[in-house]
Amino acid sequence: MKEVVYTQRVEFGDCDPARIVWFPNFFRWIDAASRHFFIECGVPPWHQTEQAMGVIGTPVVDTHARFVKTATYGDVLQFHTSIAEWRGKSFVQRYRVMRGDDLIMECDEVRIFAGHRADAPGSIRALEIPASIRALCE
Amino acid sequence: MKEVVYTQRVEFGDCDPARIVWFPNFFRWIDAASRHFFIECGVPPWHQTEQAMGVIGTPVVDTHARFVKTATYGDVLQFHTSIAEWRGKSFVQRYRVMRGDDLIMECDEVRIFAGHRADAPGSIRALEIPASIRALCE
Amino acid sequence: MKEVVYTQRVEFGDCDPARIVWFPNFFRWIDAASRHFFIECGVPPWHQTEQAMGVIGTPVVDTHARFVKTATYGDVLQFHTSIAEWRGKSFVQRYRVMRGDDLIMECDEVRIFAGHRADAPGSIRALEIPASIRALCE
Amino acid sequence: MKEVVYTQRVEFGDCDPARIVWFPNFFRWIDAASRHFFIECGVPPWHQTEQAMGVIGTPVVDTHARFVKTATYGDVLQFHTSIAEWRGKSFVQRYRVMRGDDLIMECDEVRIFAGHRADAPGSIRALEIPASIRALCE
Repeated sequence: MKEVVYTQRVEFGDCDPARIVWFPNFFRWIDAASRHFFIECGVPPWHQTEQAMGVIGTPVVDTHARFVKTATYGDVLQFHTSIAEWRGKSFVQRYRVMRGDDLIMECDEVRIFAGHRADAPGSIRALEIPASIRALCE
Repeated sequence: MKEVVYTQRVEFGDCDPARIVWFPNFFRWIDAASRHFFIECGVPPWHQTEQAMGVIGTPVVDTHARFVKTATYGDVLQFHTSIAEWRGKSFVQRYRVMRGDDLIMECDEVRIFAGHRADAPGSIRALEIPASIRALCE
Repeated sequence: MKEVVYTQRVEFGDCDPARIVWFPNFFRWIDAASRHFFIECGVPPWHQTEQAMGVIGTPVVDTHARFVKTATYGDVLQFHTSIAEWRGKSFVQRYRVMRGDDLIMECDEVRIFAGHRADAPGSIRALEIPASIRALCE
Repeated sequence: MKEVVYTQRVEFGDCDPARIVWFPNFFRWIDAASRHFFIECGVPPWHQTEQAMGVIGTPVVDTHARFVKTATYGDVLQFHTSIAEWRGKSFVQRYRVMRGDDLIMECDEVRIFAGHRADAPGSIRALEIPASIRALCE
């Protein structure tokens, strides 16, 4: 199982008046870590996959996160990212966010490979997992 | 069980290149809906509760969200917010996000009432649920 | 000259560890105020103008902001928005951000009506000010 | 004049439905570049300067930005950061944002070293430029 580490430094503006990371920012970084995982595995950017196979991105359909320790600005976080499970039309992407040896948060997401719906412009639908992408990520 | 509705219009900049809401933005709005719930119930702002009872906010320790339908800019979303469960040192805050009759997403969070730790500046700890706050929210 | 007021409440997560609005958030709200101005004037959403006249949005090419007073969470801000000047291929959009009688910040932006460039996908170009849009906004 | 380069990769979620960076994100990165400049010059984090000399941060009082070329996700941007001018109670921080040889945007900010006001909790005031900080940054 491939694991890719995405590194993110926490900035002043990422923190709230309690001086800790405002939690929605973790999801910003997790989304970047998700994309970074595919890049590191050799998957092209979504505007290329859209033309090649209709994949416009990997939207999240379900996410479950647990916040273990707080982080603040100046901290450098490592997002250990992997795909824990492949399903028919979805997959589980897993993140363990570390600050050195400390576990800061962890998250399991269900994502799909999405394409535009021909019958409803602006809407999306789940595509079969593209075999070529899965092969790059395992 | 009190329910408070927080209304949010989706803006252009909330949407990503796939023209749908970039999911971390839902957590921004959920956090505002959480705060809005307490305001509507009559709980003072955190800088006042900090002085009165040491409560600096209600950080999330666990969140589970399910994304059902996409939303895009121009949509007006209603965040139906309630507290589904009170525990010893935490509570479950629940959100059902609607666009009219359509369920867009739903989310269950575990939050705590946090105070500063005297022994570790910058760190926080879970306080007992303040009875005066709970009384306002039920 | 039409003026439209966009109202925004400052949330906890909009503030930084100094307990004041983190300034990039003002630009998020200004962009929403800009769009809101066009909506209130009767201009259709950009995905409709894209099909009707090739306009995909009004990106900012120049912005100058002055921050006068700080704001914090719980504050309700009014973004007084107008178009101060129409030029050949650009216009000046002006914002005065008030908290009641207090001026919080003010901003002058130069924006264009942008379309896709046929010769360079992914790039944009400035279009002539659409007369139909200008007529709605004056 | 010291120049520090802050590097930032543009992520999918930083882009709007026009597939280009949503401009408020440039200010998020500029604020990080500003902080990064001080860190690289050896200035301690603000929670330390607050205790040592009352400096809680360097809020922006005026900003002027010019957007020259668009950027999109996958791009890597270099924020060339310097202090162009020192004044009595403020300074001009300058950013030239490059993508390789392409100028993407440039920005001149006026910032202050801020402290809490003793007479008005929650408000801030401009401090004299701390000589020890200036010496590190020149």
